[in-house]
Amino acid sequence: MKRKIILLFFVFTGLFTGLIAQDGARRNFNIPDIPGYHTLKCDFHIHTVFSDGLVWPTLRVVEAWQEGLDVIAITDHIEYKPFKSDVNTDLNRPYQLAADKAEKLGILLIQGGEITRRMPPGHSNALFLDDVNRLDTAKWEDAFAEAKRQGAFIFWNHPGWKAQQPDTILWFDEHSGLLNQGMLHGIEIVNYKEYYPAAFAWALEKDLTLLGNSDIHGTIAQEYNLAQGEKRPMTIVFARERTVKGVKDALFEKRTVVYFDGDLYGREEWLKRLFAACTGQENNARASVNNRRSVFVTNYSGIDFHLVPGKEAQGYGLIYPLDLPAYSTIELSIKLNGDAAAVQGSIPLGFVVENAFIAPGKPLNTTIRF
Amino acid sequence: MKRKIILLFFVFTGLFTGLIAQDGARRNFNIPDIPGYHTLKCDFHIHTVFSDGLVWPTLRVVEAWQEGLDVIAITDHIEYKPFKSDVNTDLNRPYQLAADKAEKLGILLIQGGEITRRMPPGHSNALFLDDVNRLDTAKWEDAFAEAKRQGAFIFWNHPGWKAQQPDTILWFDEHSGLLNQGMLHGIEIVNYKEYYPAAFAWALEKDLTLLGNSDIHGTIAQEYNLAQGEKRPMTIVFARERTVKGVKDALFEKRTVVYFDGDLYGREEWLKRLFAACTGQENNARASVNNRRSVFVTNYSGIDFHLVPGKEAQGYGLIYPLDLPAYSTIELSIKLNGDAAAVQGSIPLGFVVENAFIAPGKPLNTTIRF
Amino acid sequence: MKRKIILLFFVFTGLFTGLIAQDGARRNFNIPDIPGYHTLKCDFHIHTVFSDGLVWPTLRVVEAWQEGLDVIAITDHIEYKPFKSDVNTDLNRPYQLAADKAEKLGILLIQGGEITRRMPPGHSNALFLDDVNRLDTAKWEDAFAEAKRQGAFIFWNHPGWKAQQPDTILWFDEHSGLLNQGMLHGIEIVNYKEYYPAAFAWALEKDLTLLGNSDIHGTIAQEYNLAQGEKRPMTIVFARERTVKGVKDALFEKRTVVYFDGDLYGREEWLKRLFAACTGQENNARASVNNRRSVFVTNYSGIDFHLVPGKEAQGYGLIYPLDLPAYSTIELSIKLNGDAAAVQGSIPLGFVVENAFIAPGKPLNTTIRF
Amino acid sequence: MKRKIILLFFVFTGLFTGLIAQDGARRNFNIPDIPGYHTLKCDFHIHTVFSDGLVWPTLRVVEAWQEGLDVIAITDHIEYKPFKSDVNTDLNRPYQLAADKAEKLGILLIQGGEITRRMPPGHSNALFLDDVNRLDTAKWEDAFAEAKRQGAFIFWNHPGWKAQQPDTILWFDEHSGLLNQGMLHGIEIVNYKEYYPAAFAWALEKDLTLLGNSDIHGTIAQEYNLAQGEKRPMTIVFARERTVKGVKDALFEKRTVVYFDGDLYGREEWLKRLFAACTGQENNARASVNNRRSVFVTNYSGIDFHLVPGKEAQGYGLIYPLDLPAYSTIELSIKLNGDAAAVQGSIPLGFVVENAFIAPGKPLNTTIRF
Repeated sequence: MKRKIILLFFVFTGLFTGLIAQDGARRNFNIPDIPGYHTLKCDFHIHTVFSDGLVWPTLRVVEAWQEGLDVIAITDHIEYKPFKSDVNTDLNRPYQLAADKAEKLGILLIQGGEITRRMPPGHSNALFLDDVNRLDTAKWEDAFAEAKRQGAFIFWNHPGWKAQQPDTILWFDEHSGLLNQGMLHGIEIVNYKEYYPAAFAWALEKDLTLLGNSDIHGTIAQEYNLAQGEKRPMTIVFARERTVKGVKDALFEKRTVVYFDGDLYGREEWLKRLFAACTGQENNARASVNNRRSVFVTNYSGIDFHLVPGKEAQGYGLIYPLDLPAYSTIELSIKLNGDAAAVQGSIPLGFVVENAFIAPGKPLNTTIRF
Repeated sequence: MKRKIILLFFVFTGLFTGLIAQDGARRNFNIPDIPGYHTLKCDFHIHTVFSDGLVWPTLRVVEAWQEGLDVIAITDHIEYKPFKSDVNTDLNRPYQLAADKAEKLGILLIQGGEITRRMPPGHSNALFLDDVNRLDTAKWEDAFAEAKRQGAFIFWNHPGWKAQQPDTILWFDEHSGLLNQGMLHGIEIVNYKEYYPAAFAWALEKDLTLLGNSDIHGTIAQEYNLAQGEKRPMTIVFARERTVKGVKDALFEKRTVVYFDGDLYGREEWLKRLFAACTGQENNARASVNNRRSVFVTNYSGIDFHLVPGKEAQGYGLIYPLDLPAYSTIELSIKLNGDAAAVQGSIPLGFVVENAFIAPGKPLNTTIRF
Repeated sequence: MKRKIILLFFVFTGLFTGLIAQDGARRNFNIPDIPGYHTLKCDFHIHTVFSDGLVWPTLRVVEAWQEGLDVIAITDHIEYKPFKSDVNTDLNRPYQLAADKAEKLGILLIQGGEITRRMPPGHSNALFLDDVNRLDTAKWEDAFAEAKRQGAFIFWNHPGWKAQQPDTILWFDEHSGLLNQGMLHGIEIVNYKEYYPAAFAWALEKDLTLLGNSDIHGTIAQEYNLAQGEKRPMTIVFARERTVKGVKDALFEKRTVVYFDGDLYGREEWLKRLFAACTGQENNARASVNNRRSVFVTNYSGIDFHLVPGKEAQGYGLIYPLDLPAYSTIELSIKLNGDAAAVQGSIPLGFVVENAFIAPGKPLNTTIRF
Repeated sequence: MKRKIILLFFVFTGLFTGLIAQDGARRNFNIPDIPGYHTLKCDFHIHTVFSDGLVWPTLRVVEAWQEGLDVIAITDHIEYKPFKSDVNTDLNRPYQLAADKAEKLGILLIQGGEITRRMPPGHSNALFLDDVNRLDTAKWEDAFAEAKRQGAFIFWNHPGWKAQQPDTILWFDEHSGLLNQGMLHGIEIVNYKEYYPAAFAWALEKDLTLLGNSDIHGTIAQEYNLAQGEKRPMTIVFARERTVKGVKDALFEKRTVVYFDGDLYGREEWLKRLFAACTGQENNARASVNNRRSVFVTNYSGIDFHLVPGKEAQGYGLIYPLDLPAYSTIELSIKLNGDAAAVQGSIPLGFVVENAFIAPGKPLNTTIRF
């Protein structure tokens, strides 16, 4: 029997007493921890009605809880508040209003703001702020300086946004200036529905932290078909502890991978460890008979992987790309002919993880042992 | 290739020029017109951050556009504004803020408010108001009187809500009083995720307009799995013209049917006409051979129907319930034996429309001619 | 990027060499083991082209693998073979043809057949047969006797099927006779899309094993929307070992629960243990402040549960039914007033598990400790 | 209330009488007719248990009915019958067995077979055969000659299949020979899950009919997530009449477009007409105020379209790609500045239809008038 889902209702304390709010269900989205680190799913770029977003701060926490995130930062535009005739302009309010709900649901909440300027330097997020309002300065240079004073982690948002760079994606002198002064620590290689390969290349070249965020203004459930497994872009953070400080350290130390539209982007060292934690192989002894070897490959994670057999694997008859869906197992067999049938020990065959990138256009390699 | 959907983005007029907002796609949800009337999909009970809802008024219009609705009323609590320290308390603002978006997307927007009192008389919505703020009176009787002065259509909300009637669903003298004074015109038989059979019975008995509304506080896309065909509760209105006045006349004249969780509830005269407009039958001459007669039944609407063969149809071999999904065609055959094979003309067989109710527990009957 | 899924392709051994078949992915459908037993998902009623099913035996194994099942029995009609002019009539062939694929994918395959007779006694499945063909006898009594000789587990199929009992659901003397002779061990309380409460009652009364099976003739993926979480009916078996013998012992010892359309049906002792294995509770210390107590309830299984607060829980403000979806966590809070706030230790509150039945119409009770 | 769907059940004529089979629902998949032609959705490459497919011929008709197709050809391998020890080897049987069901459900059924040879010339389908068995010849040349004698339409299957061309996609002299002798009329540019750009180029260059087919061996519902809108590959045929002859004429006259994984491939003349029939534009007078012009664009078809604004449209502020989902409407606005605001008449702006290709890598262009 189909049931009605009670997602959100509200305590009418003035008029009624005793009713307790529910916040829907948190659907498990497994991205496993890696040895030595907590794997945290984060979104560091989120708006509310306190700038030009369309929802109340608490809803951002509930959305994150439901989607399986661990960490969010609310980062309203500091200089752009189109609803100011109806909504409080104090930009510390979104954090204050959402803090209790975050505590209750176990979501780590980070106070931040978006420094919203013309290009250059464009838009940048400052996280871990004490007082967002103090970044509302006349000159953009002063806003960055203030953010640095507050110990913020600062990153360049949507560097390829056509509204600011219609025909180009340029790194300006202003960005080099910020970088040199320790006022630029990361860069969004993914924002909303866009991926910027040029920004990915810059990040690797200039040693910046990789970020991918939703920049959500409307609602998550309206933009992403959660029921069919779609997710917002996420920055996956490898933190030594599950605290705001753990997240901050990880960001400054560049321990991140970006998840976007089913793809992963990251430095090879982290992507390799993440893929290893997500998957497992098991020899299928029963089916490894005669001249056949059979292996079960399991994906424990909520990420669909796509494997393309390398040249050698194709030689053994694996000619098609292979889907390894989330929370699933596949069986792979190779056929040994003549001499190969006599091979002792396992046969390692190379595969390309087609949806995990260690640099623009460069996918991760992996090995399956038959 | 999968594409990224651009649902909502925003004009940064202060900082950038020329960008135009998109509002996502309006997915066709066909509930056909019936002869002489426009069939309008309406939600007359909606909250925003101006009371205890969690979204901005314009988002309510975009949600309605995307889900295929024609009419919405924003009805914030008049006496209950938990966000008042951060949000304007003028209850005419939600309508004013959303009016342009509604005009642009062709959504009819109705100004209203929710008179939010203890039971009795509980909560009631007043629609077609000129000035919502004037209903913020000390005594509830004055609020209803003011609504009547403004020519409002008034209905009792969620009469079986457990927060106000934990163990009962009672009609109070106060409701009779309102009814007698022309201050109560309709009743929600469906609210949010609940259906109240008792209210359906009252409506038929006391001649009240039937309503079913979402009472949405959070977001539609979070509560209803739109991608899988789920919808919010709707009041289906049969209007002589596609205008706010057309809607008002229809409500006062009780031309409504309620759609909720795949079921329809309504007076028989309207439900019959609606079902007739949604479906069609066609003799399948090619397959009507020998002692077999075959019919194609098509559902042109976005509503799934469920048909249960009557006793006579079962005698012809139709022993299972039949699904007639939205936008689909099914083929039905009966087998004629002996004398029946010689029948001239078509054979009318009765079916029960299992998900359309003309009274509590009483489904609609229909006929298919073989 | 969306990828093409390679589900099934085939070795053209005559014409090409080296190509190896893939069988799609097995999506994890977690129904946890209970202490002392393996929890196995089984379908004991399946047809192929060797009687009136529409698919080849190997496809039945692949379907089971993909849907997450552990055990299937192919049970073609022994006396009804409409495709006999084109297909081999040897009813041991389906098992023989599917055995290799089952071995490879780790599916336990049981040889069986459906004794297909007029009512009484109607249709019955015999499992664990050595030679199906020998049950093709003139008199139905001989078929049962032969099944018993082969040591079969025998159960009555779809006792309420309208084709055989259009207006009734009767237990005939013939069934008592079979029961008394040890030729009737179980009964389908669920078949295909139907649930028979009367059969559930008989099973409890006459001490029969509970079964629920698909009776699939077409294809699983066509009938069940797997992508949206729908599943075929299953008999959940609690086996001491993951072998055909383990399954056989469990069936004879009545260690089963039936899963159908999101609901569970079973003897209380097994249902209680299963629900306990599927769910967990954790005190939410951070949110249990002042006069509030908060608990996280997690559903580790692939079954959606629905909890209805009991009277006492409603008194603490939990007035709505609660969804506890598969692989999800919900947060529940109660509000303590006056004396209650001073309560030492946890407060146990009763809930009804609305979709788990220990007898017809009688749901399972459970307790959550706040 | 959720209902059980009755998709397939079966007439037990021997044992029971009067029961009539149902075949599930045909979900509307609208691809509109174009002026002068019926637009027919076809799959010309399908297997059954009579070669190495895994389902019975009638199920192929039911699958096509449910998915909204109009025409199918059953094309079992002529020289490859792995199930021959259990299944009749007469290759005219699949057509004979499925013909009644096709008649009943209104599906046009074409008799065919797959000439299954080593490369060159590889595999080819021959449609509109009278006697499939006569193509089972020792030499492949004789099989083609026989097909021609029977008036067949012949096309090359999966020319880029890695099992036959692991590292190459070559056009052999044998293919030129067939072409010159009038024994090769078309080519699959799409087969199963693969698209072959090289074959698309050859088809345009050598004047061959474009085909895209499923080559289904398992089941459609298992391979394509129909509930989420996925579809098998289809050859869209523009026929002067809705008959087998109409289809044959259209194929010989190259009136086809290929639909695959959400993309369209075809000659520009047909693709342009198809896109025009699928979509409509309407000026939104109410929202075209001041310096803004607004247009509603509606997609009447079941195909999702993706539009990319051209340079000029970007200059008016349309910087993002636009989704125009199936059965949906979007609103598009442009902003006029200075002189532009004074423009008389409508402003035509170019867009690229990103998922419709008139040659390999070359998308269709279209115009929207603001």
